[in-house]
Amino acid sequence: MSLLIKNITVVPMDGKDEVLESTNIYIEDDKIIDIGNIKEDINATRIIDGTNKVAIPGLINAHTHIGMSLLRNYADDLPLHEWLTQKIWPVEAKLTGEDVYWGSLLSMVEMIQSGTTAFCDMYFFMDEVGKGLEQSGMRGVLTRGIVEETGKEKEKLDDTKELYNNWNGKENGRIKVMVAPHAPYTCSPDYLEDIMDLAYELDTGIHIHLSETKKEVEDSFKTYGKSPIKHVYDLGLFKLPTIAAHCVHVDELDIKILRENNVNPVNNPSSNLKLASGFAPIDEMLKYGINLSLGTDGSSSNNNLNMFEEIHLASIVNKAVNMDAISVPAITVLKMATINGAKALLWDKEIGSIEIGKKADIILIDMDKPHLYPRHNIISSLTYSVQGSDVDTVIVDGNIIMEKREIKTLDVEKIMYNAEKVAKDLVNR
Amino acid sequence: MSLLIKNITVVPMDGKDEVLESTNIYIEDDKIIDIGNIKEDINATRIIDGTNKVAIPGLINAHTHIGMSLLRNYADDLPLHEWLTQKIWPVEAKLTGEDVYWGSLLSMVEMIQSGTTAFCDMYFFMDEVGKGLEQSGMRGVLTRGIVEETGKEKEKLDDTKELYNNWNGKENGRIKVMVAPHAPYTCSPDYLEDIMDLAYELDTGIHIHLSETKKEVEDSFKTYGKSPIKHVYDLGLFKLPTIAAHCVHVDELDIKILRENNVNPVNNPSSNLKLASGFAPIDEMLKYGINLSLGTDGSSSNNNLNMFEEIHLASIVNKAVNMDAISVPAITVLKMATINGAKALLWDKEIGSIEIGKKADIILIDMDKPHLYPRHNIISSLTYSVQGSDVDTVIVDGNIIMEKREIKTLDVEKIMYNAEKVAKDLVNR
Repeated sequence: MSLLIKNITVVPMDGKDEVLESTNIYIEDDKIIDIGNIKEDINATRIIDGTNKVAIPGLINAHTHIGMSLLRNYADDLPLHEWLTQKIWPVEAKLTGEDVYWGSLLSMVEMIQSGTTAFCDMYFFMDEVGKGLEQSGMRGVLTRGIVEETGKEKEKLDDTKELYNNWNGKENGRIKVMVAPHAPYTCSPDYLEDIMDLAYELDTGIHIHLSETKKEVEDSFKTYGKSPIKHVYDLGLFKLPTIAAHCVHVDELDIKILRENNVNPVNNPSSNLKLASGFAPIDEMLKYGINLSLGTDGSSSNNNLNMFEEIHLASIVNKAVNMDAISVPAITVLKMATINGAKALLWDKEIGSIEIGKKADIILIDMDKPHLYPRHNIISSLTYSVQGSDVDTVIVDGNIIMEKREIKTLDVEKIMYNAEKVAKDLVNR
Repeated sequence: MSLLIKNITVVPMDGKDEVLESTNIYIEDDKIIDIGNIKEDINATRIIDGTNKVAIPGLINAHTHIGMSLLRNYADDLPLHEWLTQKIWPVEAKLTGEDVYWGSLLSMVEMIQSGTTAFCDMYFFMDEVGKGLEQSGMRGVLTRGIVEETGKEKEKLDDTKELYNNWNGKENGRIKVMVAPHAPYTCSPDYLEDIMDLAYELDTGIHIHLSETKKEVEDSFKTYGKSPIKHVYDLGLFKLPTIAAHCVHVDELDIKILRENNVNPVNNPSSNLKLASGFAPIDEMLKYGINLSLGTDGSSSNNNLNMFEEIHLASIVNKAVNMDAISVPAITVLKMATINGAKALLWDKEIGSIEIGKKADIILIDMDKPHLYPRHNIISSLTYSVQGSDVDTVIVDGNIIMEKREIKTLDVEKIMYNAEKVAKDLVNR
């Protein structure tokens, strides 16, 4: 298969912070072969007219729990503890593989429709998410969230090993598996060491929640005499490549540790705001050169998986927090949502920017919308004005999985119907 | 004309915080005649099938500068002072009536497409905005922003008087005119008194910016020994019904004054965040029973006019500010965007809720979207998940001005074309 995208504005995110006007992208199979003036006589299987569209790298949602879409708008405006213990956990205890399958597909539809091409998921029944990735054509990192449970310690590690054997590298490399200790407050130090051993055995990275709430940090100081970040650092966790979701309540030492160990914190603005967790010091982390990426967290604390909302929020909220209108500018937040996410997912050699030789994970945004005129600055427009619903075409691994907003790989009607059905059944079960 | 909306879920916002499932709305001319079981033999000119849709009152954008859409994405990531003095003001000085006409129409298209039916605008060349209201079918309050300028004091007051005579009450009452001293730092106390005299003469309300930035408040203390709110209160401004945009930096005395004088502050979350103005204490104002509404401010500091973004932001940002996930819950923020806005615009007897006898200003939201499943809670969904692009149908004054996302009253292509043209000409003029 070859694909030519003609006459398109490209924001490559290749580190040069530039916008290429009226250019062309030529793709063969899964790879970007050429960008620029393409020979007139090139014989592409498919041609897309890029007039009035902007191509950017597919967005990367670096932290989510996609099965939780079933609990979207189920329990809102509640304190975190009540939300978790009285609403979310009791329902999650009743989840089946079928539930997670439909919930995950619903999330994939939503992610594709709002321009996300790759994500890092932490949940359970992860084989079902793998099946969804196989069908949807998206790219994803599967991680089975491990919460220590007496008698089930080995079973949960074996789950991850099986997940790895089933899915890692499958589908032309679109699927990866990492190891996911849920958090230092749900896994003891001994268990964390077993989990790290597994990651070494599989030669893969770690996905963990760290320092999300003030209480978690206070508790860690009470129990271990140090912050969650210092605690897992001392255990040696950061010798493994680590995706650290949240990192909201971090002190100077934490930031030093994150930087010196190349840890990849993931900012989840909507979720941190909605659950009243607080404001992560992202401007400071960015200034220290930390590879900060962006995520939505699950639909139950967000309540959607729209990365354009996170892009917008990460920029404007932090301007107010820092009382500085220059902080977290448009281009920086676009990096967080693309190339930085790719680095966090150990995928930056293949995705995260539009460059010759990289995989063709590209989204086309329809700029011919009233709220996207006039066109003074494309980078500003992408950060401050573009909506998820402006995404017109989504290409992953060289395949067009959405075109003119129609998803080519999944039966959207059937997914909405089944997700509604299993969600209603679940909460009444 | 009569219109029957059948089999629709209604969130009336009539103070009962309820959701009416599978009901009907019957409209004759500009008014809501009945809600509930409608007689089988009713003979409506038009019938809309409300299956899978939710009807809510049209959103009310209580503070904006719609002509500024021409400067959308023109000057971002800049400090407020540099933004205003080096970018915005020099360009605004070159604006013509024709520019404001096309910019305002572009904004009206955007507002209709994202569910806003009424707005309160402060700008200049306001006759052009009046023409836009006439054509678009929207409802609006026109206010000519008055900045004191030596030699032009009387001319600017006369402008407002003429605006009032031209437009107030026109188009079946869809258009109102109020008096708009820009701010206490751009109008001297004497001039403010002249402006108040004019408002008494016209028997109308005031629209003003108050306490937007920390610097403005500090300057007011230096000049007058008191806050901007106390300063204009002492001048007697609040004896007139007042729409007070921003009110970000307010102290206890300010809040007491706002409450005791029934002042209507307008929260503009996106703009206050993006310009790094700060966080308005909206939870506190709401607890004191102050009639707080919502606005977008202009497209140049937002950078869009999407009230669903403001709804979402007002709720989640303030949860984090207050470190309290219960604060500013979903229903409260929907009130801010509807009935509270109507009160601020002195229009609550006619709009702001779906009630028998009120004007038919109603929007229908298409809930048959992946990101709006499952349907556990409509109120949560409206606040946390619905996007502006989910608005399907917009009815103002009983007229369908958008249906299936197609605007019936304006030539969208022509407006986008002309807005782009005059905007590019403007910044290069």
